[in-house]
Amino acid sequence: MQSDFSKTRAEFDLPEGVIYLDGNSLGPLPRGVSARVSQAIHAEWGQMLITGWNKAGWMELPTKIGDRIARLIGAETGHVVLGDTLSIKVFQALASALDLNPGKKIILSDDGNFPSDLYMAQGLCQMLGDGYELRTVAPEAVMEAITDEVAVLMLTEVDYRTGRRHDMPALTAKAHEHGALAVWDLAHSAGATDVRVAEGGADFAIGCTYKYLNSGPGGPAFIYVAPRHAEKVRPALSGWLGHEAPFAFDLDYRPGSGIERMRVGTPPVLQMVALDAALDVFDMVEIDDLRARSLELTDAFIAAVEARCPDLVLATPRAHALRGSQVSFRHPEGYAIMQALIARGVIGDFRAPDIIRFGFTPLFTSFEDVAAAVEILAEILETGAWDRPEYKTRARVT
Amino acid sequence: MQSDFSKTRAEFDLPEGVIYLDGNSLGPLPRGVSARVSQAIHAEWGQMLITGWNKAGWMELPTKIGDRIARLIGAETGHVVLGDTLSIKVFQALASALDLNPGKKIILSDDGNFPSDLYMAQGLCQMLGDGYELRTVAPEAVMEAITDEVAVLMLTEVDYRTGRRHDMPALTAKAHEHGALAVWDLAHSAGATDVRVAEGGADFAIGCTYKYLNSGPGGPAFIYVAPRHAEKVRPALSGWLGHEAPFAFDLDYRPGSGIERMRVGTPPVLQMVALDAALDVFDMVEIDDLRARSLELTDAFIAAVEARCPDLVLATPRAHALRGSQVSFRHPEGYAIMQALIARGVIGDFRAPDIIRFGFTPLFTSFEDVAAAVEILAEILETGAWDRPEYKTRARVT
Repeated sequence: MQSDFSKTRAEFDLPEGVIYLDGNSLGPLPRGVSARVSQAIHAEWGQMLITGWNKAGWMELPTKIGDRIARLIGAETGHVVLGDTLSIKVFQALASALDLNPGKKIILSDDGNFPSDLYMAQGLCQMLGDGYELRTVAPEAVMEAITDEVAVLMLTEVDYRTGRRHDMPALTAKAHEHGALAVWDLAHSAGATDVRVAEGGADFAIGCTYKYLNSGPGGPAFIYVAPRHAEKVRPALSGWLGHEAPFAFDLDYRPGSGIERMRVGTPPVLQMVALDAALDVFDMVEIDDLRARSLELTDAFIAAVEARCPDLVLATPRAHALRGSQVSFRHPEGYAIMQALIARGVIGDFRAPDIIRFGFTPLFTSFEDVAAAVEILAEILETGAWDRPEYKTRARVT
Repeated sequence: MQSDFSKTRAEFDLPEGVIYLDGNSLGPLPRGVSARVSQAIHAEWGQMLITGWNKAGWMELPTKIGDRIARLIGAETGHVVLGDTLSIKVFQALASALDLNPGKKIILSDDGNFPSDLYMAQGLCQMLGDGYELRTVAPEAVMEAITDEVAVLMLTEVDYRTGRRHDMPALTAKAHEHGALAVWDLAHSAGATDVRVAEGGADFAIGCTYKYLNSGPGGPAFIYVAPRHAEKVRPALSGWLGHEAPFAFDLDYRPGSGIERMRVGTPPVLQMVALDAALDVFDMVEIDDLRARSLELTDAFIAAVEARCPDLVLATPRAHALRGSQVSFRHPEGYAIMQALIARGVIGDFRAPDIIRFGFTPLFTSFEDVAAAVEILAEILETGAWDRPEYKTRARVT
């Protein structure tokens, strides 16, 4: 297959006058979503009522969509399931991994991990007591910090601030050498990079779908469990839809087969079908093409910004192997610069204390977008247009 | 306000030829939902993109809708929040309650509780180890089983099989006398009965919204924390949206104010707005009228079935105080009888081993529905129309 990115771009309805470089916060609306959600509301919920669980196939959505995600993250078919939020899936993966590795009590992570991952780990350690502890080091110090003490290595593959990408195979291999399991958060990599969880040896992987996968605000999360653990893992959050026979209404929990046991409660059908429709766009491309396109876009952006904006300091690694699909620059007035950009239709994001970040979604970002965005950014910096009081008032940014 | 139930019924689009007595499994589609979801997709997600979190008010939906639910369950304003699934909320409430009551290790429940509640408790006890234990007794034996050993009493107010309603104030008072906290699951009571969590003294309450609250398949769950615990409780599932300052991206978790701390991950916006629209119908009625209407409907159904169908044995209590908003009968061929009913457009539900159950939703069930359903049920029993092989093959029933 030859991936044609002008065709995938045509699958998105982007607002007039907007250059959207924030698909790594919230992916835009794919054209197919609205009709699919409307069908689920009227023809399924409205007409089938309770029988929709079987007739419309709602009950199987979490595993069927899981197989579609599996292709995008290099996972084995039948080992990914959708459900809950990413924070819940972090908890589930961590608790399950600790349970598979009794006797050790350290969760190792880095301070570039998304805070909610750290918070969930802190809450879990507090709940478990008994010496369980989250240890965080700098991203560059992770490799060295993997010792025999570590029970679980928990990392986000691509740093939400800098776009730095961890070396999943190398870090996972070292974790395994030291008897630790590896939990990988793919929130900022799935759908825009060539994630390879099976090849990388990941024990668990988790991710959200509302960023590069474009499922819409609050779309469900996913979890991957390596086949070698699938029938051994105890799911920690043992809900009825992870039961071997949910509709037998037994009084005792018995885990379902393989990845099914990582299901918990009733799946959010409207969000699930939105995601399902959003994934259709990925059927038009090969993952290696997606990765190549992403690197071309970020290369072009870095080169143009460095040529035009000498005051911005690159925070994203130049080496392709160390880069996700976003580019970040530092500037002491980063917040105001981003507000000025947004006011001119270039939507990126700011992360404290001084990072402006730009996400590049191969499915819809074009080289024209890159050139136009750099033009506007350069003009803002050259004219000092960011230096206005209304750009310096901090509103809540997501 | 005079509640007019012909007006609320007009707010639902029910399929032609269907008498829907399964709103306690999945509520039907309220007319206002589709337009609201469509607005969220096109005008909000599509046009506002990431700014929808602030501009469209997505971030506040969980607490704003929480206040609407509070009115329906007799809770104090500002003490209910939406999010996750009911199973996750069971876990969160239980773990938080155990943490508030250290030193005791018994969770007491009954074997009429919904199995997922028991499974989540079993998973939690296994995770905590150290003597934590779920103890289940018969529903009638709960009062006597509340002893000083009990840390948390966890009950579902209305039994999903029989429709039997527990005495929340009396059981909670006894739990408190013995130094236990009470967690109440309102899945089968919220929206169809006069739930009163504040008056009943509940410490925590949880519930789902896709039954009598009509939010659609997989709609979000809710959690209530009594004001006396709101600033003390440690949320157990400590996600970023429960943080005091989620967008500061601190490395350490600090719980947010009051009920905000029970938020975990990013809320499912499409399901949230569907719920918000569904709740508009409740603005047309008073809770006491809803409860009165529910009892009139179930009284009428019980009387008519007992007059016409001598082979069916009532499983639901006759006393109003002990009844939710469903009526169940036992029959050894209950499964086949329910299939025959469904084939004739009367949609109820079967629960093993021998229960046929009928949910009455005051918002849309009419006395004509009751009469017509009984007519069809009587005919099926009188003619033996249920005795066909295709009605005896068990398919998965939700």
